[in-house]
Amino acid sequence: MESALVDVFDMKCPSRAVMEHLSSRWGVLIQIMLLREGTMRFSELRRAIGGVSEKMLAQTLQALERDGIVRRVVHPVIPPHVDYSLTDLGTDAATVVTALFDLIAGRWDEFERAQVAYDERKK
Amino acid sequence: MESALVDVFDMKCPSRAVMEHLSSRWGVLIQIMLLREGTMRFSELRRAIGGVSEKMLAQTLQALERDGIVRRVVHPVIPPHVDYSLTDLGTDAATVVTALFDLIAGRWDEFERAQVAYDERKK
Repeated sequence: MESALVDVFDMKCPSRAVMEHLSSRWGVLIQIMLLREGTMRFSELRRAIGGVSEKMLAQTLQALERDGIVRRVVHPVIPPHVDYSLTDLGTDAATVVTALFDLIAGRWDEFERAQVAYDERKK
Repeated sequence: MESALVDVFDMKCPSRAVMEHLSSRWGVLIQIMLLREGTMRFSELRRAIGGVSEKMLAQTLQALERDGIVRRVVHPVIPPHVDYSLTDLGTDAATVVTALFDLIAGRWDEFERAQVAYDERKK
């Protein structure tokens, strides 16, 4: 598919799924974690991300690997271990996702004021 | 809540919900639509976004209004009509969300190659 044909307004466009993987709750955490910490093992990611189940973490990492965001390297040692890191594409995506999170964190007072004002109006 | 206390790694942090509203399928479309088109009425948004139900559009607009992203103005005319536009905060958020979408659209060939290669490896 040519880039020019990627159409966010088309329900069936596969770019929608990539957007959802990148911006999902766990997808965001994985990107920010990996971006900050460099290469990590599955068990390290699991410990670092509060509340994620082993199954959900594995599924999210698979989706991000399939999209070309995350690189998975299996080391054939005993016991075997698996490293995860960001690809070049993943590093660029993580930068943008981090910008979105930084905007939310940096202007949290504005979000919170809006929410309080909205709830007051609806009382 | 002080900005410094916004913690993406805390399961209960309300910033998670804002991130999800901003990056949800319909939330993204609303922001990009509004950013590009300026003020729009509900019916115009509904027509512009393929596949969204009236209920889902209303819920998404409410969530974005509560977060301070979208401004809703009711004009007391007959018949009444309601305008939606981006707040200043919403415009800044939409810029970042658009950057994420532009990255996906602009490098779609890389995402697609990664997906094809992944599927080949798993055969």
